[in-house]
Amino acid sequence: MPEEHIVATVEVMLGADLSGIDSHGVNMMTLYDQLRTAGKITMTPEVRVVRENAATALIDAGGGLGHFPSVTAMRLAIAKAKAAGTGAVAVRNSHHYGAAGVYARMAAEAGLIGLSTTATFSPAIVPTFGAEAVFGTNPIAFAAPTRRNPPFLLDMATSTVAMGKIKLASQAKKPMPLGWSLGRDGRPTADADEAIVSRLLSPLGGTRELGGHKGYGLAMMVEILSVTLSGAAFVALRLKRDPDAARHDVGHFFYAMDPDCFREAGAFEADMDEMIDALRATRPLDPAQPVIVPGDPEHAARIERAANGIPLSDAVIADVKRIASAAGAEFILT
Amino acid sequence: MPEEHIVATVEVMLGADLSGIDSHGVNMMTLYDQLRTAGKITMTPEVRVVRENAATALIDAGGGLGHFPSVTAMRLAIAKAKAAGTGAVAVRNSHHYGAAGVYARMAAEAGLIGLSTTATFSPAIVPTFGAEAVFGTNPIAFAAPTRRNPPFLLDMATSTVAMGKIKLASQAKKPMPLGWSLGRDGRPTADADEAIVSRLLSPLGGTRELGGHKGYGLAMMVEILSVTLSGAAFVALRLKRDPDAARHDVGHFFYAMDPDCFREAGAFEADMDEMIDALRATRPLDPAQPVIVPGDPEHAARIERAANGIPLSDAVIADVKRIASAAGAEFILT
Repeated sequence: MPEEHIVATVEVMLGADLSGIDSHGVNMMTLYDQLRTAGKITMTPEVRVVRENAATALIDAGGGLGHFPSVTAMRLAIAKAKAAGTGAVAVRNSHHYGAAGVYARMAAEAGLIGLSTTATFSPAIVPTFGAEAVFGTNPIAFAAPTRRNPPFLLDMATSTVAMGKIKLASQAKKPMPLGWSLGRDGRPTADADEAIVSRLLSPLGGTRELGGHKGYGLAMMVEILSVTLSGAAFVALRLKRDPDAARHDVGHFFYAMDPDCFREAGAFEADMDEMIDALRATRPLDPAQPVIVPGDPEHAARIERAANGIPLSDAVIADVKRIASAAGAEFILT
Repeated sequence: MPEEHIVATVEVMLGADLSGIDSHGVNMMTLYDQLRTAGKITMTPEVRVVRENAATALIDAGGGLGHFPSVTAMRLAIAKAKAAGTGAVAVRNSHHYGAAGVYARMAAEAGLIGLSTTATFSPAIVPTFGAEAVFGTNPIAFAAPTRRNPPFLLDMATSTVAMGKIKLASQAKKPMPLGWSLGRDGRPTADADEAIVSRLLSPLGGTRELGGHKGYGLAMMVEILSVTLSGAAFVALRLKRDPDAARHDVGHFFYAMDPDCFREAGAFEADMDEMIDALRATRPLDPAQPVIVPGDPEHAARIERAANGIPLSDAVIADVKRIASAAGAEFILT
């Protein structure tokens, strides 16, 4: 990879690991190496701005990993927001971009409201009334700047849970709550082993009566912003039409907005702090578990891990060692 | 009310009733009349653009009902999106604006992606780990244009269900699913009568293990966009600091984006139609209930009601009659 691609990719992966999002950091090396050896991504993509005006842009990622074009896209959205008030940047012909929250946080660190969404390369979420998966886990990340508190940071898959939680339930040999996944028969299942085979995640809300149609709608909103706006591939159609496509053509979306276009400088951040303080002071159900704010767990992990390091499982270390060895790269993680 | 305020208010209320959203149309007359007689809204507000650039604006609604300033705001967002690619308009000092989906649909009808969010004037949603309500039902509406199909239209409260569904369960004397509401003790309840008294709605996802923290995060995202960005009142703080405030200072957010800034003209709409067709063709769990797309029920209601009229309950008709009589207005709904 070109040097600046390496820097961006490592920064985004490290951002996930630092924030405690272990599933989207160095743990992803295995997948990325599989995609590379299968020829599904190029390590030397040409990333270029295809269309652009003062407030919008479209980037073609050139068929490589998503991190570098996505850092480029969010930086462009931030620059446009600083100049024009808002910036919307769509990315096509990309691949896995790591943790959505890393990009939204970039905007908040620049004093802006930030949003990022992404489609994924394999279907996971089943629409309401359906018995097959059509959307990826299609995350939404939204961040807003503060002064005294950590930034607000919502980073959520639009499925009820990520696949990782189902694997944990399987390892613990515990039944899952109904509403996490369907079995191969299309009905809600409590059997985690069955859910691992079926790969049929329920949209946020789970069953219809608990609002699963809303999670389905949010997953489709993410697909529209990430894929339809950029001209990337809608995964369910790509798999039907061209299952062996040379490129997975994943799409992403990035948005930044400057609060100072709406309010006096500093007023937005002051009100964010007041809202966050009020939330923390909400009467809790259990005094031992106060109300927290989206972004708090990630912020706590960043402080702890920046001081004490990022714990890696033996399995992850062995995987990285194997990949390094196969690539003829020195293994320095000892 | 000034004539143009009347026209906008009626159009938005009628849009909700036509779309089958009975809770947000003429049914709201009772609330609006209560607010008017209590002096909480003015019928002759001065609605003005306070700040503006090519892609953003802030509107002060002057302390009246939300419909007219919101139609003004979405029209402004649409005009900006047509000229600059995107338009973001925040509204402060407003009140109830009806059904969020009506505004998002305005953008789709203009060939644009549309988004609207609003805060509300009374708390309803309880944050994860909390035992008191801090956010309103804080809806998100998102729409996207198509060519052959009805536009995509997601219009959802960020609570698991609206209060109306709980009232229906109470009338039917049926237990509710856990995940709709908490009882006065802060624990999930299946008792609809208890839920009507407690007014403690669960965020989308319901319990923590089914992703309720995501619904909480979405409700807060809506509050930030609607209230913190515009400088309106965060309802939980307003009630603590100034429970008798002369104005409720509700905030809204409107956004429009032109797909033609990202793609060749018509490509976005063609891909939307393909995605919608693919969703309808998803293998269903029950062949008698095919997969539908967000916006389908509203679209079907619009066709049916435009042809056959809007059914009104005797209770709604009696309410409107009472309000008309008290205001010295002729009752013509016979």
